[in-house]
Amino acid sequence: MIIGGRYGLSSKDTTPAMMISVYENLASDNPKKGFTVGIEDYVTNLSLPAKENVSILCKGTFEGKFYGLGSDGTVGANKNSIKIIGETTDKYCQAYFAYDSKKSGGFTASHLRFGDKQIRAPYLVTTPDFVACHVPAYIDQYDVLEGIKENGSFLLNSIWDVEETKKRLPDHMKKTLAQKNIKFYIINATKIAEEIGLGNRTNTIMQSAFFKIAYVIPCDLAVEQMKKMIVKSFGRKGEDVVNMNYKAVAAGGDITKVDIPAEWKDINADGFKVVRNREVPEFISSVADVMNSQNGEKLPVSTFDGREDGTFPNGTTKYEKRGVAVNVPEWIPENCIQCNQCAYVCPHAAIRPFLLTDDEVKNAPEGTTTIKGIGGTKEYQFRMQVSVLDCTGCGNCADVCPAKTKALEMKPLGSQMEEVDRWYYMDEKVGYKDEILPKEKTVKNSQFAQPLFEFSGACAGCGETPYIKALTQLFGERMLIANATGCSSIYGGSAPATPYCQSYKSNKGPAWANSLFEDNAEYGFGMAVGVEKMREKIALLLNEAKWSGEAAEAAKEWLDNMHVAEASEKASERLINAISGLNDDIAKEVLAKKHYLIKKYVWVFGGDGWAYDIGYGGVDHVIASGKDINIIVMDTEVYSNTGGQASKATPVGAVAKFAAAGMRTRKKDLGAMAMTYGYVYVAQVAMGASQNQYFKAIKEAEAYPGPSLIIAYAPCINHGLRAGMGKTQLEEKLAVECVYWANYRYNPLLEKEGKNPFTLDSKEPDWSKFQDFLNGEVRYTSLMKEFPEDAKVLFKLAEENAQWRYNYYKKLANM
Amino acid sequence: MIIGGRYGLSSKDTTPAMMISVYENLASDNPKKGFTVGIEDYVTNLSLPAKENVSILCKGTFEGKFYGLGSDGTVGANKNSIKIIGETTDKYCQAYFAYDSKKSGGFTASHLRFGDKQIRAPYLVTTPDFVACHVPAYIDQYDVLEGIKENGSFLLNSIWDVEETKKRLPDHMKKTLAQKNIKFYIINATKIAEEIGLGNRTNTIMQSAFFKIAYVIPCDLAVEQMKKMIVKSFGRKGEDVVNMNYKAVAAGGDITKVDIPAEWKDINADGFKVVRNREVPEFISSVADVMNSQNGEKLPVSTFDGREDGTFPNGTTKYEKRGVAVNVPEWIPENCIQCNQCAYVCPHAAIRPFLLTDDEVKNAPEGTTTIKGIGGTKEYQFRMQVSVLDCTGCGNCADVCPAKTKALEMKPLGSQMEEVDRWYYMDEKVGYKDEILPKEKTVKNSQFAQPLFEFSGACAGCGETPYIKALTQLFGERMLIANATGCSSIYGGSAPATPYCQSYKSNKGPAWANSLFEDNAEYGFGMAVGVEKMREKIALLLNEAKWSGEAAEAAKEWLDNMHVAEASEKASERLINAISGLNDDIAKEVLAKKHYLIKKYVWVFGGDGWAYDIGYGGVDHVIASGKDINIIVMDTEVYSNTGGQASKATPVGAVAKFAAAGMRTRKKDLGAMAMTYGYVYVAQVAMGASQNQYFKAIKEAEAYPGPSLIIAYAPCINHGLRAGMGKTQLEEKLAVECVYWANYRYNPLLEKEGKNPFTLDSKEPDWSKFQDFLNGEVRYTSLMKEFPEDAKVLFKLAEENAQWRYNYYKKLANM
Repeated sequence: MIIGGRYGLSSKDTTPAMMISVYENLASDNPKKGFTVGIEDYVTNLSLPAKENVSILCKGTFEGKFYGLGSDGTVGANKNSIKIIGETTDKYCQAYFAYDSKKSGGFTASHLRFGDKQIRAPYLVTTPDFVACHVPAYIDQYDVLEGIKENGSFLLNSIWDVEETKKRLPDHMKKTLAQKNIKFYIINATKIAEEIGLGNRTNTIMQSAFFKIAYVIPCDLAVEQMKKMIVKSFGRKGEDVVNMNYKAVAAGGDITKVDIPAEWKDINADGFKVVRNREVPEFISSVADVMNSQNGEKLPVSTFDGREDGTFPNGTTKYEKRGVAVNVPEWIPENCIQCNQCAYVCPHAAIRPFLLTDDEVKNAPEGTTTIKGIGGTKEYQFRMQVSVLDCTGCGNCADVCPAKTKALEMKPLGSQMEEVDRWYYMDEKVGYKDEILPKEKTVKNSQFAQPLFEFSGACAGCGETPYIKALTQLFGERMLIANATGCSSIYGGSAPATPYCQSYKSNKGPAWANSLFEDNAEYGFGMAVGVEKMREKIALLLNEAKWSGEAAEAAKEWLDNMHVAEASEKASERLINAISGLNDDIAKEVLAKKHYLIKKYVWVFGGDGWAYDIGYGGVDHVIASGKDINIIVMDTEVYSNTGGQASKATPVGAVAKFAAAGMRTRKKDLGAMAMTYGYVYVAQVAMGASQNQYFKAIKEAEAYPGPSLIIAYAPCINHGLRAGMGKTQLEEKLAVECVYWANYRYNPLLEKEGKNPFTLDSKEPDWSKFQDFLNGEVRYTSLMKEFPEDAKVLFKLAEENAQWRYNYYKKLANM
Repeated sequence: MIIGGRYGLSSKDTTPAMMISVYENLASDNPKKGFTVGIEDYVTNLSLPAKENVSILCKGTFEGKFYGLGSDGTVGANKNSIKIIGETTDKYCQAYFAYDSKKSGGFTASHLRFGDKQIRAPYLVTTPDFVACHVPAYIDQYDVLEGIKENGSFLLNSIWDVEETKKRLPDHMKKTLAQKNIKFYIINATKIAEEIGLGNRTNTIMQSAFFKIAYVIPCDLAVEQMKKMIVKSFGRKGEDVVNMNYKAVAAGGDITKVDIPAEWKDINADGFKVVRNREVPEFISSVADVMNSQNGEKLPVSTFDGREDGTFPNGTTKYEKRGVAVNVPEWIPENCIQCNQCAYVCPHAAIRPFLLTDDEVKNAPEGTTTIKGIGGTKEYQFRMQVSVLDCTGCGNCADVCPAKTKALEMKPLGSQMEEVDRWYYMDEKVGYKDEILPKEKTVKNSQFAQPLFEFSGACAGCGETPYIKALTQLFGERMLIANATGCSSIYGGSAPATPYCQSYKSNKGPAWANSLFEDNAEYGFGMAVGVEKMREKIALLLNEAKWSGEAAEAAKEWLDNMHVAEASEKASERLINAISGLNDDIAKEVLAKKHYLIKKYVWVFGGDGWAYDIGYGGVDHVIASGKDINIIVMDTEVYSNTGGQASKATPVGAVAKFAAAGMRTRKKDLGAMAMTYGYVYVAQVAMGASQNQYFKAIKEAEAYPGPSLIIAYAPCINHGLRAGMGKTQLEEKLAVECVYWANYRYNPLLEKEGKNPFTLDSKEPDWSKFQDFLNGEVRYTSLMKEFPEDAKVLFKLAEENAQWRYNYYKKLANM
């Protein structure tokens, strides 16, 4: 048997053909039964003892295909289903799990086979007996019935009743259902899950429905086994979760059979095609849509004519419009204080403030409400606009809203569909008036700038992406990014979609590339040295040039300002104009290097697995160099991308993979280590605790003429926030309040002025809240459940460590 | 042309066949002439423009072979010779340089060829026209005339006159000289070099003599060119050195031709064989001697019968008796205060105190003087004994002697040959009475213990080896060492010789192994975890055992003391005795693991290139683990083994390879970084500044039940000490006095007692001495010569950095 965990693909190693599915192995937790791993083994090692009274649906090998979301539990449920079948029958079993490379909310397909004969099929299920579609919207996005066998079964999670469902089905599906005599069942698992309290996790309901329809084993046995698995899977999450899933098992019986009208057989329908209401670039229709609908491997080589070097256009996530949110924020203008905090914290750049002229207000789609701008924007009308199809529905925006009465309320996606066109109007027609207020002055101002990182495939509520988004708003047009493999490389570049985009005004945006854990800091260092050398060469040429008049003056201006961000931009424009007409070798050589005229910002991105562990040697080497380079570490305290393995950033007491009995050593203090150089700018930040402190830190880091290291606390799905991923910003605040995490900045420039370089931004903590904080995250509470005695000791130690570290910082601050 | 630099072989990658010679390439500094690198290229790319009036000695290809010491400059002179020939004639040239793997004072052979035709000879010179032997003693150690052509020439550096020289020649050489009609010249280059002030650097004298004899180019031209090369090679070392070498060129004419008696032709002589006066183990005579005489590749496979796994016996350096010192210390008993400091600092363990009973005094070789022991040793006679053939003559022992009138005086080796037998008597018959005074109490006491690391191939005056030697005296019998590649791995294990040896009493000694830069800390970590697991298993077994009586009591004693060094040793002995007779599975299993009964000390060794740079990620990972493991970094502030490349340990202003214009960044503070964990014992030490502080540090590190990191300042030949390598201990003292280097200890155990864990052992510095210190080392003064303006700025910065760091330490000490 092959069963899978999660594996994220970086854009580097994703080819269209690979895109469709990634397989991987996971050692079974039941080795005594001969579950083994590996293509060869699964077909031979699963001879389970015969049992009696087992009904089976079909003779030969049964093939099932289940379409789901990365976050709805489909894969987990199917892993359990195949285990149940394997353990309660003497059947041979096989399971493959295919994913796209979205972090969560992405596409998954589970391919299950079982039967009485050895299964020799090391390929995906192409002729399913049974198809389940767990996501209603997929009927328009994927060819879910592709290859289904005659007389097979199709189970659809439908939010519509029978009649509405029939209407919504695309013609090609109707025809297949009728032609192949498919048994068609629907269940409103979305509604049931929400009612039970499971959110969008429809998995157990759909699993139960599968057992009812497929009847592989007697239903009573299936129910008993599903319950066992529920205890095993969710036991450590608490009794509530177990009970909700028990209810889901029961609700799985609530299926409705839909009769197929005979006339559907004669419908004149083309095959499957992605439906688009708006015009999209050729790349989107001929490459991206095809890949996204899991048909990438069918693309002929000729599709890539002109793209042979592997270059994909950037800024393409905006065409995905995934619509994966259950609820999205609705803006309530009368409550809004125009602080823009919601936009600042949005992990997906799906909520943005716009400033409209009167004309723009007039031309807006009907029903568009605005309010009068305040302060420097009072000449304009203000609107906070949500892109509801790009929103993932986490709710952090509404949660951070500081208005007396919240100006954002989470509403079902279906109720907000009018915002779709409104979004297009704002983004494309109204645009980003970031020239009205200087964006580098305040958090509020910065949000009028266009984010050059949008709609990534990161998890809903991701703690990392808001940090990146803000960086692109301030520096994006002149940014070079070296991105370590990990979550940030997966959501940063998942073929075919790229969230990094260009400014509508300048057509400039971040240049981004991904390298590995073990050399990413060095990779960025190479970029920095390369840019430096090119610019030194330009300076050399300009110093050699014997020009006069405007050319000479423009060259002087450039030389005087080459290291000053804004000024170098102006000087570069002037220089290009001044020398473009010259018939002069030096002018030609300078123009050939014109991309390097404007000062560049080199940023190195990565997580704690990279910066604290595997790539630390490189991080250290690069900061030691003294070169002007900026590093941001998104610290989730575990290897997030691979599923939460412990790193040296994992604190005492936290449960993580490889630290199942709680981490035993103190969290490494990466920042303190970097500070020992004395010439490295260092900051620890947590945006949710202080939006302004983060804002200051990135500006100081960028301005510092040497290496900078920012360590950003980032809550993550691996933490198991009991309050949910809609509270990641709040969690950051709580972490800083009890000094689970300390915010500080160390600026060597202050020392040159005779001041203390270290500023402790965290306030005197309320230690009484420390244990409460730990109790708010499953990575800690699960230790309490499984090893209560150890947990007591380790949690006390965790608090002592936090105090020890905080005292050290206080001493530094008073040095 | 292929010309070589230095390359050290680790014992790991040295096979007998490889032993004879290591070749490597060095890009020429004269690329415009088409000097290129690579076996293929050198034969084709050296068509230099024709010159007239050039005499040549021989038609066809001239082949020369030059035997020298690694430290006497032979290789450097020959590199210059071949460059001179290449640049002043139109000849094709080739040069190979072969080394053994001693750090310095090792064997070198230069193989030069030149001629009018392309040279197609990618192998060593086997039929030389000319042989030069730069080291008198080599006539007994190597077959220097092997393969010499008929009518060829032989130049010997002889410390004897013509008649004495004739007597000293082995018979097989006499016969060859006569049979092949060799022209035989001698010159007393040793005496001349010493008179001129060049110490043992006979290279320029011998080079000049070669040009005179070989007459490749007119002597005037040769002299002119040699002088040019001298300026190039030694210019940055100052005018004095240049002038001394000019004198050496002139002195090279001082050769004497020796007539060969015709009757030598008829001498009845066997071929070459290493001469031994004492019996040696079979391995030494049949393997080590053959390899050391550069005939390793002639050993048949059958020699390795019983050694197929590659295991070489340890403790074999003592059979080398290299006799490479020019001067060695003579003990002056009446001045001696019995402090043993000389023994503590000796890099080669070649001077040791012995305590003799009256009987032992009586049986000592004639003329053996002793003095009455003092304090706890007053029942014994005391003698400081030098092993003059193992001494490398650095003179640190005499330099550190604190007696009012020095108790050690450096005397020519020839005058001290009576000490040879005396050494054998002391070492083998009198032995090490370390039970008289507890060795862990004081530096003095520790020196009565047998060093289990002796006579390594390290450079004379090496700053690293005294640290290691002291460790083996305290912990050697129970030590496991993981050694990073670098100097310490080369002198720690140069096949066929191993300096790590066993105690005469216990037959136990350090277990040593070498891994690479990139994983040595992890390698040691594996050892530590392995030992820990084995001991945990033993504890588990003993807890399960249902023994009674002595076995039960012995088991309990072991369990109670398993983590206590000395106590575990006693308990282990008792346990083995108690259970050896039991017919019991547990007893058998415990006995099978008996090597793990005694607590082990795991030490990780390496240099700064390893610990600060390439292996730093691993060092950090291992100390972060919290495991009980000890790391010592021998910090020479450069990659020493590969010839002095800059590392992150290189301070501002120092000249090193890759930092030819002076290092620009501050030295990394590895210790401060490790201290941020709070649970790592950290010390910076410099034995020459405080012998006692180092002694304390290693004991504390060993006793600390977690990771320990000791960073030891180690002067190195790459520093270019103007006072010479006989002053390395003094240099450490000077470094600490001006706080170029700070000594401190950080002990987390103190914090648990409510004390400040950080102790600054360095005293308030005398900053006025800082620049003097820099001026005492060529790595700094050469910057002043080449980039005087930069040097001023950087030296000031170096002082400011030292102050900055010292102030930081002071603050830590007062926290």
